Amino acid sequence: MNGAESLVRTLLASGVDLCFANPGTSEINFVAALDRAPGMRCVLALFEGVVTGAADGYGRMARKPAATLMHCGPGFANGLAYLHNAKRAETPILNIVGDQATYHAPFNPPLASDIEAWARPVSQWVRKVTRAQTLGIDAAEAVQGARNPPGGSATLILPSDVSWSEGGVPGAALPVPVPAQTTADAVLDAARALRSGEPALILMSGAALLPDALAIGYAIAAGTGAQLMTPTFNARIARGRGRPPLDIVPYPVDEAVAKLKHFKHLILVGTGEPVAFFAYPGKPSIVSPPDAAVHVLARPEHDLKDALARLADELRCPPRAVPETPPEAAPQRGPLTAEGAAALVAALMPEHAILVDEAITLRAPFFAGTRNAPPHDWLQVPGGAIGGGLPLATGAALGAPGRRVIVLQGDGSAAYTLQALWTQARENLDVTTILLSNRKYAILFKELADVGAAAGQTARDLFELKRPEVDWLRVAGSMGVEAARADTLESFADLLRGAFARKGPFLIELML
Amino acid sequence: MNGAESLVRTLLASGVDLCFANPGTSEINFVAALDRAPGMRCVLALFEGVVTGAADGYGRMARKPAATLMHCGPGFANGLAYLHNAKRAETPILNIVGDQATYHAPFNPPLASDIEAWARPVSQWVRKVTRAQTLGIDAAEAVQGARNPPGGSATLILPSDVSWSEGGVPGAALPVPVPAQTTADAVLDAARALRSGEPALILMSGAALLPDALAIGYAIAAGTGAQLMTPTFNARIARGRGRPPLDIVPYPVDEAVAKLKHFKHLILVGTGEPVAFFAYPGKPSIVSPPDAAVHVLARPEHDLKDALARLADELRCPPRAVPETPPEAAPQRGPLTAEGAAALVAALMPEHAILVDEAITLRAPFFAGTRNAPPHDWLQVPGGAIGGGLPLATGAALGAPGRRVIVLQGDGSAAYTLQALWTQARENLDVTTILLSNRKYAILFKELADVGAAAGQTARDLFELKRPEVDWLRVAGSMGVEAARADTLESFADLLRGAFARKGPFLIELML
Repeated sequence: MNGAESLVRTLLASGVDLCFANPGTSEINFVAALDRAPGMRCVLALFEGVVTGAADGYGRMARKPAATLMHCGPGFANGLAYLHNAKRAETPILNIVGDQATYHAPFNPPLASDIEAWARPVSQWVRKVTRAQTLGIDAAEAVQGARNPPGGSATLILPSDVSWSEGGVPGAALPVPVPAQTTADAVLDAARALRSGEPALILMSGAALLPDALAIGYAIAAGTGAQLMTPTFNARIARGRGRPPLDIVPYPVDEAVAKLKHFKHLILVGTGEPVAFFAYPGKPSIVSPPDAAVHVLARPEHDLKDALARLADELRCPPRAVPETPPEAAPQRGPLTAEGAAALVAALMPEHAILVDEAITLRAPFFAGTRNAPPHDWLQVPGGAIGGGLPLATGAALGAPGRRVIVLQGDGSAAYTLQALWTQARENLDVTTILLSNRKYAILFKELADVGAAAGQTARDLFELKRPEVDWLRVAGSMGVEAARADTLESFADLLRGAFARKGPFLIELML
Repeated sequence: MNGAESLVRTLLASGVDLCFANPGTSEINFVAALDRAPGMRCVLALFEGVVTGAADGYGRMARKPAATLMHCGPGFANGLAYLHNAKRAETPILNIVGDQATYHAPFNPPLASDIEAWARPVSQWVRKVTRAQTLGIDAAEAVQGARNPPGGSATLILPSDVSWSEGGVPGAALPVPVPAQTTADAVLDAARALRSGEPALILMSGAALLPDALAIGYAIAAGTGAQLMTPTFNARIARGRGRPPLDIVPYPVDEAVAKLKHFKHLILVGTGEPVAFFAYPGKPSIVSPPDAAVHVLARPEHDLKDALARLADELRCPPRAVPETPPEAAPQRGPLTAEGAAALVAALMPEHAILVDEAITLRAPFFAGTRNAPPHDWLQVPGGAIGGGLPLATGAALGAPGRRVIVLQGDGSAAYTLQALWTQARENLDVTTILLSNRKYAILFKELADVGAAAGQTARDLFELKRPEVDWLRVAGSMGVEAARADTLESFADLLRGAFARKGPFLIELML
């Protein structure tokens, strides 16, 4: 058995059975091994950003790592941006990156590059393997490395001679790492703050936003009068009817400061102090009040549900039912607005949909408008790497089969990774893309105004996307995804119903 | 004057007046400064790989750096692959990468990342600037850093507070670095080898393939009986009628070894010993004979033309006219073949065209078929990062206005960076894309066969691009580029004539 085959067999034994791939020559022996050791579902992408973004979406929903397979050096570099997002989302991913043969690399062939240097900033585990004989053990450790709490990328750099050399031995699966418990002191400290009667904010992220943990957080907030909130961007939020209502720290610094200014205590659960996305002259980096007391109940790598449960016990906060809120009536006619479109999505979406949010400047109305929608998961781009939406949706559909994925996608951002549509068509994934088209980088016009600069001709040329307009219906069609444009609420409702009823992807463009 | 404005003014003073851009919030002050300090032509791309690939094409043709403007962290990561190609092409590029404000970065906001770690492997100069007051000097040094022989990326990391802070002072332009001369010993050593009467190969790359230097190399080869050759991939080769005929070291290792095995001397001019693109079991890394004597006439950072001129003097090799070779008659009718298509390109292309070669498995017939075409430059992807072709063509058109750019582009590779078509339409560039469509990663089928593996179902699924087929005419149309498909030599000839006669881009798909 060669090294590559021992790697495939180890991955399968370790529960990694889906691989997002864009292979090259240095990965050829791994590809050949996939046919000798069957069981790995391979999902091809035309660009590596789709590979890594999809692995992020898959891991967030499946709660286990997919493998990625990328080509040595520059191929892997093309996937870094969405590994950055995955890092911030704490998503377990196992990256397999081919490399030059160990003895060939010193001759500096054209594709030789420093893969380790590129991998380290986005990986919580990196290893360049050197021997076929130990590759199985390396691979099992890599899977464990990806699942190490809170979860992240493990990047296994695989020289081609290690792949093709005989002597491979499949590694036994290693235990899935269990997150540590937070300390008793941390629980008592948080309890004291919540009992103080002073205004307290419980800021939760990561695994604290999965349904069970979130319900406990809600019970604590309801029982103590504290407020529950999440950072501006999160990997996955359980929300909709019957789920605890959750506010989000606003993106604009001034709004965030205003919203948080009255809190005396900050209870952090799986996240840090709320930090502004960017710095602005004269504005703070941390948007919570400087004099608020900070209480770290649990860090991201801790067992967040356990920490919340122990805090609820300490505070004697029993489970609470979330008050029933009837769905709002959706407008069925009239001009197309973001608010109207959001109400229609909320009214028509199936239960347990997955909403992927790369709506950028149009997020607020859609987030507000789906508060009372059927129960769903809301996935964001916590790393801020633009273009994450379409790949994320692609992977989420594979990580949660049977659930409808709905992407709220700005048109500027969509252009970075439009190749994801091809993979959606190829795998016939139930992804409905709602393309929010304004033909500009709207956020940059806003930011320019915020720094007090008038938009001169150069700035306008860099932020407008009208010369030429991308024809998104043709883009989708060229990649095998049917698409249509909605100009009114009526036509949007019709298209939505059709898209949700069909098996497979569809794209609806909204001109907003 | 703030830091950003001092940066723009320094670039303009240093002769950097074109900027390929995909900006974000951290670059907003730089964008605002562009309108206060006019003179920079900004070329927007929808994806950062287009930004860097185009800067590579521009630098190769203009022989001076363009600036690139990319967003902090992941945005820059999206451009790394084609900076790798640019590094291998020795192309001067000035990268401006926004970053978190110096005081904000320690709070680890979502987009915080290790830009330096990502930049170093592809840059010959990297600096994270810290003060508006010295940014002008930093910028002037960066331009010099990019032009330092042999040329490469200078990456200037620009925290947003350095951009917006007052106190900026434009830096004076620094002298363009002059390449060093090779040693007299190196010239004498090469001369001795060439006088020995033993079979000698002069292997030239980089600036040695520009017209003047190449002519001297040809005179030396003709005068001594040596053979002239280039490595498999080169930044730019001057070729066509009246230019010295040049053979290329073949890509397949066995063919390369067979072609080079009789040489006793290797004279290296701006390149290293010929190295195989990848390693294969039982095959050598260096494809020239192990017992051939290696003579380094000049390294890439030397003045290659000077080295060749001194060698020609030493050997008393006067200039030689290249024998006239009549253009071959192009077949005008019949089934579409790569050979027939190549002959048509050679027959119909205008003088001083720029041929960009990302033809991958279909390169050989096009390279052979254009040998006697009108004088042209042949640009390759020396770093091997797939998808370099369309961006390279985009930048080459801007770096050499008035010249027709023709891209020979495999369809699999085109999918990585198809957004380049949008920039071609936006800037109305004279780029004719010849899309060589075979609906597969043909090279990977070949490599799989070479490792002795049968193509199983998984391998076929990963290498075939037929499910669904990308509709390239719609892709082009969606990006504002007119396109048509040729199924016969007649229709290809008609489309080529039309494409060459028009101002602006056009895409012709050849089903091969």
